[in-house]
Amino acid sequence: MRIIGIDPGLLHTGWAIIDVAGSSRTYIASGVILPPVKLATPERLKLIFRGVADLCEKFKPDVCSIEIIFVNQNPKTTLALGQARAASIVAVGNFDIPVFEYEPNIIKKALTGAGHADKEQIYKMLKILLPAAKPKTADESDAIAIAMTHANMSSVMIR
Amino acid sequence: MRIIGIDPGLLHTGWAIIDVAGSSRTYIASGVILPPVKLATPERLKLIFRGVADLCEKFKPDVCSIEIIFVNQNPKTTLALGQARAASIVAVGNFDIPVFEYEPNIIKKALTGAGHADKEQIYKMLKILLPAAKPKTADESDAIAIAMTHANMSSVMIR
Repeated sequence: MRIIGIDPGLLHTGWAIIDVAGSSRTYIASGVILPPVKLATPERLKLIFRGVADLCEKFKPDVCSIEIIFVNQNPKTTLALGQARAASIVAVGNFDIPVFEYEPNIIKKALTGAGHADKEQIYKMLKILLPAAKPKTADESDAIAIAMTHANMSSVMIR
Repeated sequence: MRIIGIDPGLLHTGWAIIDVAGSSRTYIASGVILPPVKLATPERLKLIFRGVADLCEKFKPDVCSIEIIFVNQNPKTTLALGQARAASIVAVGNFDIPVFEYEPNIIKKALTGAGHADKEQIYKMLKILLPAAKPKTADESDAIAIAMTHANMSSVMIR
């Protein structure tokens, strides 16, 4: 099973591809989609949509894993995030790839065993689980964590 | 010029098609995309995306007109609206149709002359300007108003 993990954002949309076979996980690729900041929101959404669609064409993932957004302290940020998230989801959905959503504390727990783990702990865990992955940004690292969450959660569900 | 106006929402996405030639406006069609309420957000977003894409294929609009969302009293509603809006925008953008965004008070002003007009006033004005339009819901009526706004604003911009 090939998973695309997406960490959406209007400024940076992190993505990661991992392969899962039984208990083995293989890092394939990861990166960040960066729509130019000078563009209007519709143009940025289009670039996120096209970027994710290109990844689906290139890597042919079987499933997509993405974080559930909750309304946070800054509603403007939530709105921007929601729009970037929807652009990613419909890009994947357009390839009939099912989308699985995980809450942030589930992502942390699935990787470190603790729902309140910080980014540093997650990053350390990813280095152990997927040594080939060398994320350069937090968005890329988060996308790998989200993909790994589905790998771990789906094997739990199958058992 | 053919305009598609969209009033996005996760439950009801209103849409309207109007043709503009000089000062004349012709009502072509309107309706509402209704993703089943029992579906998860990704599935609903996919149905909105596909619904808008089908409209673009069928009616071949030249431009899209859509409302700008502001963070309102209920951040959860804003988030839902933002996601539905992004699904519509990327569907249109995928056909390389330019998207124009208007603030709610501009939409009201472009139709009634008053930035604080209520829904009833807008509806009455639409009946005068586009007698062929017989919107059955507020979402459909709002979509017609949004399409008409671009018709009126773009003729102002050209003059």
